[in-house]
Amino acid sequence: MTTDRTRVDAGKLTDFTTKALQKVGIPEEDAQITARILVATDLRIDTHGTANLAGYAKGIKEGRINRKPNVKIFSQAPSTATMDGDQGLGFVVGHHAMVEAIHRTEKTGAGFIAVRNSNHFGAAACYAMMALEHDMIGIAMTNTSTTMGMMVPGSASTKPALGTNPLAVAVPAGKKPPFVLDMATTVVAAGKFGLALREGKSIPEGWAIDKEGKPITDPTKRVHGEGGMLPLGGTPKLGGYKGFGLGVLVEILCGVLSGSFASIPKESPPEARGKAGDHFFGALRIGSFLPVENFKKSMDEMIEAIEALPTLPGVKKIYVAGGYEAEVEKDRKANGIPLHSKVIEELQALAKEVGIEYDL
Amino acid sequence: MTTDRTRVDAGKLTDFTTKALQKVGIPEEDAQITARILVATDLRIDTHGTANLAGYAKGIKEGRINRKPNVKIFSQAPSTATMDGDQGLGFVVGHHAMVEAIHRTEKTGAGFIAVRNSNHFGAAACYAMMALEHDMIGIAMTNTSTTMGMMVPGSASTKPALGTNPLAVAVPAGKKPPFVLDMATTVVAAGKFGLALREGKSIPEGWAIDKEGKPITDPTKRVHGEGGMLPLGGTPKLGGYKGFGLGVLVEILCGVLSGSFASIPKESPPEARGKAGDHFFGALRIGSFLPVENFKKSMDEMIEAIEALPTLPGVKKIYVAGGYEAEVEKDRKANGIPLHSKVIEELQALAKEVGIEYDL
Repeated sequence: MTTDRTRVDAGKLTDFTTKALQKVGIPEEDAQITARILVATDLRIDTHGTANLAGYAKGIKEGRINRKPNVKIFSQAPSTATMDGDQGLGFVVGHHAMVEAIHRTEKTGAGFIAVRNSNHFGAAACYAMMALEHDMIGIAMTNTSTTMGMMVPGSASTKPALGTNPLAVAVPAGKKPPFVLDMATTVVAAGKFGLALREGKSIPEGWAIDKEGKPITDPTKRVHGEGGMLPLGGTPKLGGYKGFGLGVLVEILCGVLSGSFASIPKESPPEARGKAGDHFFGALRIGSFLPVENFKKSMDEMIEAIEALPTLPGVKKIYVAGGYEAEVEKDRKANGIPLHSKVIEELQALAKEVGIEYDL
Repeated sequence: MTTDRTRVDAGKLTDFTTKALQKVGIPEEDAQITARILVATDLRIDTHGTANLAGYAKGIKEGRINRKPNVKIFSQAPSTATMDGDQGLGFVVGHHAMVEAIHRTEKTGAGFIAVRNSNHFGAAACYAMMALEHDMIGIAMTNTSTTMGMMVPGSASTKPALGTNPLAVAVPAGKKPPFVLDMATTVVAAGKFGLALREGKSIPEGWAIDKEGKPITDPTKRVHGEGGMLPLGGTPKLGGYKGFGLGVLVEILCGVLSGSFASIPKESPPEARGKAGDHFFGALRIGSFLPVENFKKSMDEMIEAIEALPTLPGVKKIYVAGGYEAEVEKDRKANGIPLHSKVIEELQALAKEVGIEYDL
């Protein structure tokens, strides 16, 4: 942790976030849901949390996000539903959709909800992890804007075809932390590219290509709409078509299955399809496959077997997905969330603007 | 196509395969199921098909594969079930499991089956694609042997922790070929590594590491149990933890959720867990989310938008997953399946051994 970060209490940050959202017109319950998700994210990772609060507040004030959405659910079968988010806050729409998926999973063993007309919902893992306390496997994904778009594989084209389209899966374990995989289907998430851009740092070869299809290490060489991020795997030789395929799959489950794509004119460029507003949620009830205790015991044994592999020199520990974040969470719950000085400045400005006290 | 390949008729190859399997004791219906899957694979890709027939026949004759398995289904909920394959042929067990998943999906909109005690089932895509004619999205995955094992990410350890653990998803479109993604969660499938080994060719840097964690381009430098294939993404910097996470996820859904892991002593090394015999199948009914015609129209438009992107010099066409294989299938259905001379020799030897005519 660098010295330009200050530790703030998670409970206080939740209260502050709730108040700020209420001040821009979000109803109390929805403000609480959103604050809980943003701070839960801050407890585990450095992006996708309250660092974006000012941005959401701006979207709400400018009317791009609907303060009081009329969220509708359409269902044709016991295990599935389609949801229209009415342009509400992604956190609120996402929370309700995952609750609905869990509800259906309690009854039938599996539940899947495709959501259209929502907005940016933060970190996908937060929704997948809602399944854990119900002894379920949780799934969450979203399409994203093509502003920081990814690329068709193997330098076949330099036009962004899709967003970073992340997917997350959470699986409960016993004594061990839950398995939590949350991954952009590009080589890295847009946030890491953006961070290098802001800090004037170079990026490793293999993250992105320029408008001629050549690898770039200077992130400023990426011009919007020309060149972009490579799919997970990178070039075709190293499996880039797999990352691209996963990105298309996320687009199918979020954008096509929710009915969102049907509203886009056929002639529109692919960029028009990157709306960052369609999601897909699902759950599987473990107890409908085998006794939950047997499952959790096997999860612990599998994770422990991987962690017990001999490490190469310089490697302290082998992590299974979610293991590192669980350590971070334990520390931040005890010692506070390290907010960057720039984020604190933004939150202070937001407090002043909406008329609440900055008390973190 | 090189000249050491001969085109054979798909129908004749199916009949030959059925007869050969019957001769080693597989009941007629199961032999037909297996032959159909193997030849359907040959029609689309160059591995995982009848080139492995002699190997399966050997496994059957040596008793490792149960000729007449008593496949059992246990179900605790309308949308899910667990299946015990009784060490039967993976193709037969897999076929029945996917039929069961589709059956449950017809009723509830979603169906998922975890399978234990099966065997190698060929290409995962074949099972996922069974959902297409029902206007469903199909999912299939399997754990695999760690003989050609993959690696924990970032050269953290050189001990294989998992197999190549492939996953496949098939999604119907309208006029366009279906989306079919079938991918090992390692950089490449074991077959491509094996091919380089047999042909004495080098492999690209990024596929595998040696026992000291260094990249190798000479496939013979990979010693069993020390060093191995990298997960999709390769090094941590380029997202290798994502491929590793996907590999662990496949192991969870196949090995842990089916109850297979519970039978492995806790003290066993991770290698003992790579049994290549646990699968996971699923389906989602499109009509339970939105009208099927709307879905297919949107799929066509999305695929066409990606294919219409401007290509870089030297790139003939941009493919969405399954698009290239659909072109291959059309050609091979019309002109025959190109079998390598070595495969033909093996099939001729098999014919002689089991006492059937080689009539391809």
